[in-house]
Amino acid sequence: MIRLAISLGDPSGIGPEVTARALARLGRRACAPYLFGDRSFAATAARAGLRLPRVAPGEPLPAGGALVEVTRLAAADRRPGRPSPEGGRAQLAYLTAAFAAVQDGRCQALCTAPVSKAQVALALPGFVGHTEWLEERTGGRSVMMLASERLRVALVTNHLQLARVPAEVAPEAILEVVEITARALARQFGIPRPRVAVCAMNPHAGDGGAFGDEERRLVEPALAAARARGIRASGPWPADSVFFRAVAGEFDAVVALYHDQGLIPVKLLDAVNGESAVNVTLGLPIVRTSPDHGVAYDRAGKGEASADSMVAAIRLAVRMAGGRKPA
Amino acid sequence: MIRLAISLGDPSGIGPEVTARALARLGRRACAPYLFGDRSFAATAARAGLRLPRVAPGEPLPAGGALVEVTRLAAADRRPGRPSPEGGRAQLAYLTAAFAAVQDGRCQALCTAPVSKAQVALALPGFVGHTEWLEERTGGRSVMMLASERLRVALVTNHLQLARVPAEVAPEAILEVVEITARALARQFGIPRPRVAVCAMNPHAGDGGAFGDEERRLVEPALAAARARGIRASGPWPADSVFFRAVAGEFDAVVALYHDQGLIPVKLLDAVNGESAVNVTLGLPIVRTSPDHGVAYDRAGKGEASADSMVAAIRLAVRMAGGRKPA
Repeated sequence: MIRLAISLGDPSGIGPEVTARALARLGRRACAPYLFGDRSFAATAARAGLRLPRVAPGEPLPAGGALVEVTRLAAADRRPGRPSPEGGRAQLAYLTAAFAAVQDGRCQALCTAPVSKAQVALALPGFVGHTEWLEERTGGRSVMMLASERLRVALVTNHLQLARVPAEVAPEAILEVVEITARALARQFGIPRPRVAVCAMNPHAGDGGAFGDEERRLVEPALAAARARGIRASGPWPADSVFFRAVAGEFDAVVALYHDQGLIPVKLLDAVNGESAVNVTLGLPIVRTSPDHGVAYDRAGKGEASADSMVAAIRLAVRMAGGRKPA
Repeated sequence: MIRLAISLGDPSGIGPEVTARALARLGRRACAPYLFGDRSFAATAARAGLRLPRVAPGEPLPAGGALVEVTRLAAADRRPGRPSPEGGRAQLAYLTAAFAAVQDGRCQALCTAPVSKAQVALALPGFVGHTEWLEERTGGRSVMMLASERLRVALVTNHLQLARVPAEVAPEAILEVVEITARALARQFGIPRPRVAVCAMNPHAGDGGAFGDEERRLVEPALAAARARGIRASGPWPADSVFFRAVAGEFDAVVALYHDQGLIPVKLLDAVNGESAVNVTLGLPIVRTSPDHGVAYDRAGKGEASADSMVAAIRLAVRMAGGRKPA
């Protein structure tokens, strides 16, 4: 059974409650979960029908899963929908402890519930998110992938102004993302010789140069280099048809050149077809997934937030740690 | 019954056969179809179980529909998958005759089967497509909309290099598209006080200026001007969530700032969920729709091409001409 470390994230957000409901729904055989959070999580878990032994941070992890009580917050510091600086420090402590458990081999994969970047940054100035924090600690070059049942999308650029995309998307950057994606699909998703499609930048892939030459200048050199390294990379494909071709099974993943190009289709399938999307960080020496939602203060503590994405994030972390293809 | 002019497009493409199958499927009560094409279409129609009276171009149009025999092409000039210059001249003649029937009031709406731009351009140098040809003849400023059952998307820019999008998307251009879209929804789609959503240009709508100010500089002034004219326009919405919100019923149409932003979601829903997308030209003094596919020479004459989009294009033209909301 895979030993999965889960950092419970912002104690004032929906992270703890959706984690409890997700684990209750998945059942005891899905994984051995080690939850890094506040002592009060035991009550949240019990409400969801989940029972776990409780241990202090320094203690050995029991087989089968446990709640590691990293903090004992006062009720005022963990009120639903009301973030606190103490809660910010706590979120960082959960992440640090969960990550340490994966780094030293006590756990095999990491799943992170959402944090409040602003609250964590009060405790750790410069904190901009899980991904960058993990990159710094592992020395990895990471790639953000959104994975749902039928569509996996990796991004070459992320939170970047659209006007800067053409200048930032260098052939080397595309090649790096294609390589990291192909390697992760083979090693962690259990897909031998994965087929990686790369999006064009311009409509109709520039229509032979009629509106744009980025396909020829940027994408094709990256594809040639990827193929020379034995990767089954193809493209540049017009972005308005590559995603449904991937959904139909023609490609194992799509590399998108910019944020909205990749996230529009993933989030549409997620919302319309219920294909829960999971955020996966590729390229790190550890497996890390997270649900694709945030702390959602407006819904915290009401028991109404959907646990679907957390269920999918836990499942995918377990499967990636086992190197098996997600069902 | 709406009198619908249909130009049959490239006689070597799939246009004639999908039109015949679409009309046979829709039945005699859907509309009175006037098909402008080659005499040989009568055989294509008969194979699909469709029977229509045949008239010469100058003759009055009989009630209930007819095949207007604009050309009598030799078999060599209308071979499936093998375009000919004579076929190019013919396509232009069908379009010209069908458009004239709408202009002079004999028909109430126009539906265009796909043409080969290259073949038509041999007969009419400078021809780049139906839309531009119609714009020139009607003096309209047209807007391309892709409409499926649950999602309507209008484009501010179309076949434009991505790098040029930020400079081309002026507030005036956004405003014009919002106005044309809102007017068409009210008058032709039968939606009183339509809600029009406008996409942001940058991921997360620029996140308050952190990555891009186009939302503040370009989109917000257009929205303010549109609202001042009484239009229920909203945005700038992050493009990775606005489309599923529209599908869920929150907006009647989405204005996308560039081609792939709008076409990725429409074509994904079309391919994955079977929501046949139709191309609609808004802003012209006439109603004009077309299927969202091309001549598809590789499938012509085999009887295998899907008529779904042509069915949807005919239905939508009929409904727009009647000013009723599409079901």
